[in-house]
Amino acid sequence: MTKIKVGIIGAGRIGKIHADNLLRHPDVEIVAVSDLFAGEELKAWAAARGIGILTKDSDDIIRHPDIDAVFICSSTDTHVPLIKQAALAGKHIFCEKPVSMEIERTEEAIEAVRQAGVKLQIGFNRRFDHNFKRVRQHVEDGTIGTPHIVKITSRDPSPPPRDYIKVSGGLFMDMAIHDFDMARFLSGSEVVEVYAQGGVLVDPVFAEYEDVDTAIITLKFANGALGVIDNSRKAVYGYDQRVEVFGSKGSVSVANDHPNTAVVSTEEGISSDKPLHFFLERYTQAYAEEVEKFIDSLVNGAPLPVDGNDGLQAERIALAAKLSYRLNRAVKISEIGELRRSMAIQT
Amino acid sequence: MTKIKVGIIGAGRIGKIHADNLLRHPDVEIVAVSDLFAGEELKAWAAARGIGILTKDSDDIIRHPDIDAVFICSSTDTHVPLIKQAALAGKHIFCEKPVSMEIERTEEAIEAVRQAGVKLQIGFNRRFDHNFKRVRQHVEDGTIGTPHIVKITSRDPSPPPRDYIKVSGGLFMDMAIHDFDMARFLSGSEVVEVYAQGGVLVDPVFAEYEDVDTAIITLKFANGALGVIDNSRKAVYGYDQRVEVFGSKGSVSVANDHPNTAVVSTEEGISSDKPLHFFLERYTQAYAEEVEKFIDSLVNGAPLPVDGNDGLQAERIALAAKLSYRLNRAVKISEIGELRRSMAIQT
Amino acid sequence: MTKIKVGIIGAGRIGKIHADNLLRHPDVEIVAVSDLFAGEELKAWAAARGIGILTKDSDDIIRHPDIDAVFICSSTDTHVPLIKQAALAGKHIFCEKPVSMEIERTEEAIEAVRQAGVKLQIGFNRRFDHNFKRVRQHVEDGTIGTPHIVKITSRDPSPPPRDYIKVSGGLFMDMAIHDFDMARFLSGSEVVEVYAQGGVLVDPVFAEYEDVDTAIITLKFANGALGVIDNSRKAVYGYDQRVEVFGSKGSVSVANDHPNTAVVSTEEGISSDKPLHFFLERYTQAYAEEVEKFIDSLVNGAPLPVDGNDGLQAERIALAAKLSYRLNRAVKISEIGELRRSMAIQT
Amino acid sequence: MTKIKVGIIGAGRIGKIHADNLLRHPDVEIVAVSDLFAGEELKAWAAARGIGILTKDSDDIIRHPDIDAVFICSSTDTHVPLIKQAALAGKHIFCEKPVSMEIERTEEAIEAVRQAGVKLQIGFNRRFDHNFKRVRQHVEDGTIGTPHIVKITSRDPSPPPRDYIKVSGGLFMDMAIHDFDMARFLSGSEVVEVYAQGGVLVDPVFAEYEDVDTAIITLKFANGALGVIDNSRKAVYGYDQRVEVFGSKGSVSVANDHPNTAVVSTEEGISSDKPLHFFLERYTQAYAEEVEKFIDSLVNGAPLPVDGNDGLQAERIALAAKLSYRLNRAVKISEIGELRRSMAIQT
Repeated sequence: MTKIKVGIIGAGRIGKIHADNLLRHPDVEIVAVSDLFAGEELKAWAAARGIGILTKDSDDIIRHPDIDAVFICSSTDTHVPLIKQAALAGKHIFCEKPVSMEIERTEEAIEAVRQAGVKLQIGFNRRFDHNFKRVRQHVEDGTIGTPHIVKITSRDPSPPPRDYIKVSGGLFMDMAIHDFDMARFLSGSEVVEVYAQGGVLVDPVFAEYEDVDTAIITLKFANGALGVIDNSRKAVYGYDQRVEVFGSKGSVSVANDHPNTAVVSTEEGISSDKPLHFFLERYTQAYAEEVEKFIDSLVNGAPLPVDGNDGLQAERIALAAKLSYRLNRAVKISEIGELRRSMAIQT
Repeated sequence: MTKIKVGIIGAGRIGKIHADNLLRHPDVEIVAVSDLFAGEELKAWAAARGIGILTKDSDDIIRHPDIDAVFICSSTDTHVPLIKQAALAGKHIFCEKPVSMEIERTEEAIEAVRQAGVKLQIGFNRRFDHNFKRVRQHVEDGTIGTPHIVKITSRDPSPPPRDYIKVSGGLFMDMAIHDFDMARFLSGSEVVEVYAQGGVLVDPVFAEYEDVDTAIITLKFANGALGVIDNSRKAVYGYDQRVEVFGSKGSVSVANDHPNTAVVSTEEGISSDKPLHFFLERYTQAYAEEVEKFIDSLVNGAPLPVDGNDGLQAERIALAAKLSYRLNRAVKISEIGELRRSMAIQT
Repeated sequence: MTKIKVGIIGAGRIGKIHADNLLRHPDVEIVAVSDLFAGEELKAWAAARGIGILTKDSDDIIRHPDIDAVFICSSTDTHVPLIKQAALAGKHIFCEKPVSMEIERTEEAIEAVRQAGVKLQIGFNRRFDHNFKRVRQHVEDGTIGTPHIVKITSRDPSPPPRDYIKVSGGLFMDMAIHDFDMARFLSGSEVVEVYAQGGVLVDPVFAEYEDVDTAIITLKFANGALGVIDNSRKAVYGYDQRVEVFGSKGSVSVANDHPNTAVVSTEEGISSDKPLHFFLERYTQAYAEEVEKFIDSLVNGAPLPVDGNDGLQAERIALAAKLSYRLNRAVKISEIGELRRSMAIQT
Repeated sequence: MTKIKVGIIGAGRIGKIHADNLLRHPDVEIVAVSDLFAGEELKAWAAARGIGILTKDSDDIIRHPDIDAVFICSSTDTHVPLIKQAALAGKHIFCEKPVSMEIERTEEAIEAVRQAGVKLQIGFNRRFDHNFKRVRQHVEDGTIGTPHIVKITSRDPSPPPRDYIKVSGGLFMDMAIHDFDMARFLSGSEVVEVYAQGGVLVDPVFAEYEDVDTAIITLKFANGALGVIDNSRKAVYGYDQRVEVFGSKGSVSVANDHPNTAVVSTEEGISSDKPLHFFLERYTQAYAEEVEKFIDSLVNGAPLPVDGNDGLQAERIALAAKLSYRLNRAVKISEIGELRRSMAIQT
């Protein structure tokens, strides 16, 4: 069998994770990696993995005739132009979330992909987590009946640096966007309305960028179900990633993953170790599986597990959350276009 | 020592629970019980407990010269007049929640109590639950630092009958009012703003009375913290009463109570028994303790653990939730007076 | 209905617990209490409970014509003579464990009870614990198939004082006897062979009295199943009372009870409160229920839940364990008579 | 850096696991694999992994000049001769457990290794399990004080086939040997005495080979602590691998690993998925880590985590257990030599 030839654009933390997962796949060959800041360290990294081409120019990847698929792991502002170019060049695309911070731009990218007839998968890795998959399966199997309430707790162990906050797009677009996708994934229904309440309780730096570090977001789904997400940029005890779906026949919930099951009992009380620290530890297997499913789709024509539309819908919810927070009222997904025009805001 | 002499007005389910808890108290004597529907059954019940007076007329209790304190366990519409009368008669008062469904009326009752210099405790029994008390203690001790998010899950095992729904005041006033008090209790801060989203997902009968059976309520506290409550009238697996307080130094959460700790492992999976079925099973000890604290306050002058103002604040939040749900926007506690006038609604 | 009239012999900690549980029973009247050391304190205690007769002489109880049933809560050496006297006087008997530390004496007591046609219940309170009852029920229901292994963990929070150790009969007879009864109760099968290994790891005082403070006891049941008990006189984290029954179709196990379900997550880890401290906290409800069942048997003729034979069998196992520990080999229940003769030991 | 060149003898299930873990190691090259039954399937397997030499003759590996280390994964009866040959050839050795079923033969193998000055690691993979490592660490750190009781539950999901039972060496040597090593590992002390009780409760086939399928084994450690192991060949709910160490300052215990944390609550009760099915699922990471540590020892001279003596000690305990079961009495490790002679048994 001929191997799928892959090029990776952007060799930061996430690009490297994808690379290592791709290298373990028997049907894949990584032909080239590009990174704006490619230096000695990256050279050594690529060499150790037998990756032949290391370049600073993403064009070298997009124009490479042998490459079948590109992984876009560069900064968010480059996603849309790269998707368009890759689609035009007939490459299949795996792109990190979010596609962009402007709905119209994301729509353009999706349209380019559609016209080119290539595949586009968005990096919503959490759908592949063993816990969340099991919840989804129970919902699909009807174990809990019709979903009434979807609850998502999503808290990071510590806030990102100021430089990241500045360009992140804000908590709703940067962090909660994973939760918006999770809400759609778990409920199997579209979000039609959003109310977001937030606060700056962790670090005043967030206020400087009109951002929040703590949020409660209420969702209303097309099927009438309700959802709620609580976010914090700082859970000192580690990455907190739990969900619950409550329905007419019961509920299903998942707790965090822990490094071990050891429980210590002493005169002081009962204790155990904290949850897995952050996304690299918690989603190790999920990252591997999302890449596997993408390759599987290319090789065997299996349907994509997360496509461009999933990216778009999550962005719409994020935008509605942002608007809701500013207006302090519920915002319908259907009114975000008009609201943005009337508010003349850039989001 | 002279015993505290108590009269109980309303001998329904909750009145009887209070009676039995009072009977176990060495410092208390139940002198009289009144109930509109006092019949043979109640007569036997009172006789078995050595309660000398059983009457249909609450006046017999309020005017009884020996009685020191009255327990008002009759229907909500009788609470305010009975509180006023009892206060005027110089009796201390334990009154079930809510005091009334109209803020102004509740304020009148509190004013009457104040003028009479008697004590008034409101039946927010959950404050005395062993789990919630432990959460509160951790918050007070600073174990989790400054609270950022208060989360309350509160779901009943099955909806009340139509006749009850009709006069209940609606989910926000009837059911969530306990959670509003819990939010204040756990956070130690006042609620300043409310957003309520709801739906009729359990039974269409709720729609007939402009009520909901499922709700997500977002709270904003005076100190900037956020809160969220999720309610359902029907959790088929039993009474679901959990809370979590998340703060700058960590979180504390409580799970449901179960009738036993037995875990069965078979070829089909791992299983255990459902949580305690409903409030009678879950709050047995809490009901006993709230009565004990009330008596303790009368005997030893200890401060009341829940007073009239606590009842009033919870009603204000409930009203704000009701208004928010109708207006589909966040409602400030400070604006409920004006809003009610402008909407000319009766709540 | 006429009330069951009860006399209590021995008003130590356990006698008082039984008294308070009896007082709560609508069908019971406590007529008299005897205690060798009855003084002012006990007088006040009895007065507060409306108990008419307080005496130092147990004869006053056994000869009292109105008394239907006696609770024998005095020291172990008095059990057999009191049972015999009470049986002769036609009283029903509730006796604390063990009946005696000599099998033959226990047999005599049982014979006296048989001849008198009165009822004798032994105070194996743990059979009434909500957790262990649930395990037994699963075993009876066949949930876990045929039992293969019965595991019992039974550890006290702290060792008794020297004076108690001296006369306790040793860990096997004093402490593990509850576990021997539990093994029979859970498995529904008789123990036929015992191997006991022990050590003095907690406090050298145990060695002074040829006792152990730590033990592992292996049981073989008549039906071929195996059992294992681990005991310690000192679990610093509190009373540790867990069991597991493992069988052909699965297993059922119970964890300890805790004062609350609060879980705290901080930078240091996850923690919760210790289990309920000791038997008074853990078995509160079980003590109430064993008394209720005894009274129920007297009033309604329901079969006794734990009878004299149960007491005898547990003592036999305890003796076998004691012998096994000395001989460092497995001891059959059927050989304990002969072994004792050949060893000329007093146990 | 030059890579460690490895040859694998025996390409059954466990040989293949080691191979895949070795292939992932950057410092390792697998030069050759031998298997008595090497056929087309194995050829394809080796080819897909780029393994150059596939042979039926283990000599091809032992005499290969480039090979630094051999993995002995063939049947138990071949272990000793292969260890001797490999040692003579100057190869480092990783050998599966048990080294042999005869203590003297194991001693010969260890002596050969000593004389050759090569390294020998035994495949006690469970020492590398994340849960058991954490328990050991707590014991070492003194978290639980001086160990008093070590408890090990070790149950397989289903019995092996008759052909395996026939040559397995019996439950004590084949299955419990892992637990004997675990007991030494966790306690940090040598076992000095063993008592084993067993039964044929799962399948009569075990009786045909004088084997048992269910066992309770009591251990006494040199430091006075006690241990207990319970084994079953058939836990229908999956692989059951739990331990607890109880000591003067508390206890530490570990529960099973599960494929996810999903908990379902319905009208029927609370349920979750079974534990990971068997050793391949449970010990995936442990298998990887034991190989990593072995290579690490070869490359960096780090001490071996499990050596020949560890293999020998576990075999001694297994033999004592076997003898104890036959004699139905406790057997000291120090008396097994004499006992075997006097019993003229082959074990």
